[in-house]
Amino acid sequence: MTAEPIHPPHRLLMGPGPITADPRVLRAMSAALVGQFDPWMTDTMNETQELYRQVFRTRNDATVLVDGTSRAGIEAVLVSLLSPGDRVLVPVFGRFGHLLAEIAQRCGAEVHTIETPWGTVFTPEQIEQAIVAVRPTLLALVQGDTSTTMNQPLADLGGICAEHGVLFYADLTASVGGNPFAMDDWRLDAVSAGLQKCLGGPSGSAPVSLSPAALAVIDGRRHVEAGIREAGDVATGERIRSNYFDLGMILDYWGPRRLNHHTEATTMLYGARECARLLLQEGLDAAVDRHALHGAAMLAGVRGLGLTPFGDLAHKMHNVVAVEIPEGVNGDAVRAGLLTDYGIEIGTSFGPLHGRVWRIGTMGYNARHDAVLLTLAALEQALREAGASPTPGAGVAAAKEVYA
Amino acid sequence: MTAEPIHPPHRLLMGPGPITADPRVLRAMSAALVGQFDPWMTDTMNETQELYRQVFRTRNDATVLVDGTSRAGIEAVLVSLLSPGDRVLVPVFGRFGHLLAEIAQRCGAEVHTIETPWGTVFTPEQIEQAIVAVRPTLLALVQGDTSTTMNQPLADLGGICAEHGVLFYADLTASVGGNPFAMDDWRLDAVSAGLQKCLGGPSGSAPVSLSPAALAVIDGRRHVEAGIREAGDVATGERIRSNYFDLGMILDYWGPRRLNHHTEATTMLYGARECARLLLQEGLDAAVDRHALHGAAMLAGVRGLGLTPFGDLAHKMHNVVAVEIPEGVNGDAVRAGLLTDYGIEIGTSFGPLHGRVWRIGTMGYNARHDAVLLTLAALEQALREAGASPTPGAGVAAAKEVYA
Repeated sequence: MTAEPIHPPHRLLMGPGPITADPRVLRAMSAALVGQFDPWMTDTMNETQELYRQVFRTRNDATVLVDGTSRAGIEAVLVSLLSPGDRVLVPVFGRFGHLLAEIAQRCGAEVHTIETPWGTVFTPEQIEQAIVAVRPTLLALVQGDTSTTMNQPLADLGGICAEHGVLFYADLTASVGGNPFAMDDWRLDAVSAGLQKCLGGPSGSAPVSLSPAALAVIDGRRHVEAGIREAGDVATGERIRSNYFDLGMILDYWGPRRLNHHTEATTMLYGARECARLLLQEGLDAAVDRHALHGAAMLAGVRGLGLTPFGDLAHKMHNVVAVEIPEGVNGDAVRAGLLTDYGIEIGTSFGPLHGRVWRIGTMGYNARHDAVLLTLAALEQALREAGASPTPGAGVAAAKEVYA
Repeated sequence: MTAEPIHPPHRLLMGPGPITADPRVLRAMSAALVGQFDPWMTDTMNETQELYRQVFRTRNDATVLVDGTSRAGIEAVLVSLLSPGDRVLVPVFGRFGHLLAEIAQRCGAEVHTIETPWGTVFTPEQIEQAIVAVRPTLLALVQGDTSTTMNQPLADLGGICAEHGVLFYADLTASVGGNPFAMDDWRLDAVSAGLQKCLGGPSGSAPVSLSPAALAVIDGRRHVEAGIREAGDVATGERIRSNYFDLGMILDYWGPRRLNHHTEATTMLYGARECARLLLQEGLDAAVDRHALHGAAMLAGVRGLGLTPFGDLAHKMHNVVAVEIPEGVNGDAVRAGLLTDYGIEIGTSFGPLHGRVWRIGTMGYNARHDAVLLTLAALEQALREAGASPTPGAGVAAAKEVYA
């Protein structure tokens, strides 16, 4: 077999993520490698930690990258915080709630879920009631679930958790950078994220941050690896079930001891650093406003095309909209037409929404005027070919009104 | 905090890895992203699987990338193959044997180790005796351990394992591409690797391959995720303790069902694909010969400088040599001088060899004539500054003799 150098087709990725990476992020990732304990490298690791503290709006010292995709970050947090038998409460409002529950089960935790119909979010009262009933050690949920496009309000949950002595963890993969978030003000104990949504990078690096309270749990389970253990390294508590995801060891690698754990995925680190750098250069509030603007334009645009958005729009993430597939239209044929004829990707959907909605993203590098209008123009054509009768020009016009 | 665009210092990485990545690999990684279920993307995933089958010299259908560093690949294999209570035998001949034992313990396995002094390898008889005594379900070891530079012969172990009904797993991270290997001929059931040594890429992607016998173990533990489960998806056996490292689910994502698991780290996939493509373009045998040549030149060169290589040289990997730090020379000061004055990195060491040897690599992109001679020229200067008295020019001359 003779393979040719990589040469991807041109694509505008307007699905729920991954989206087209910012070219500046990909360029940063072509920088040369440096040794893992080179002073420049450790300085760059420290700098990246500080950038993600700003992204998460936290002062947590324990802010690092996990070398894997978003779900690696989720698993690292859950396996490090949960001991077998611990009770965890997972409010499920879409596919990724199920994922958190499943990962927590595999950690040996006693998992309790509450569910709300897809397209809605929970009230603080619903979550507090469940906390009172379950008495978990950890509340775990996602902020934004791309499967439903919903953005679960978190601001009031930190106080509730503190009152009941519950650690509070949220996965921010789908939402961070495009929707308001403030780790310390909202009193979260753990967060995880990924690069491939509003941060405009490729999948493969998972920033996480832990509050002092979360860190204390991990400090109670410290075990330095046999091959590099030194006198004075005393093991405490039950060993975390994973070596790769042992956040205590990962923190020892990122921290002043620089204890060798994995070999840092330097190219992904360069990418993660550039994602955060560009976001902070734009400004966190400005980036949220940009996502709000282009999300509103896309929402107006699909309505202009006669399509019906799905779910409780008051709680929609800025960066993705789900759109009901019109009666009589073959949803997969429309998606295939968009890809083949225009190089534009929009998303299908999971579970109860499978075959019922498309999901259209406006995030990261693609939260842009031209990306929104191109998508609406092409979607109008594809709908017409599929037998629908969108008003000519009405999608683009509605979006332009938002911009005007 | 205002961060600048990434701008690493120039470095020639001549340690035990990571080494300077091949610029062609980094360029491949700057290619644009494509959606994860785009036909071009799934074709590219299929193609990458085929490339790694060739790299490992196997016909195993179950050949995929795990999205993480080398130890992610190790953990994926062990947590997927081992159920709690399973007996595993780990022959330890350096730090990474300890790592395999530690990961297997965290999987809940009953771990038995045998040890041989650092700088030596095991005979097949020693391993067979331990198999007879322990009766493990799995033999797990590394082929090459950079901590000692040793290359454990594997060719005879597959037959022994088959005879005793033991699955045979080896981690190839340090050795693959630079030393002979043949998965099917040598009858291995599972292998894992990384890109950052002889493959000339960055850390962050772990190719793994499973034989039909290993796959059968995993097929006995299949559990499709709740959020995407369909009628007919029947769970069997004890659920694997990790979601991220559940090779059954990872195989469903790479296989014809394309069941969503993680979001593929596309940029790392591009890098992994290019590493394999370049290796196969050169030819597996030619690449091993190249590593043998430059490894021999480096070995001759350090001897020419009056240094003593460490360990059983008959079983040294081609791509790294350990060198005793001469009496009275400050090893860390020499390494710091090489880095500061010449931008050249050589390695320190772990455990019983800490402070006793340097480790010098000649691998991947840096298994090159100029890289070897530059390193020897700079090392001669650094040794002199540290108070040693190397014969002027003798290191470079000895290496040149190997080349001549």
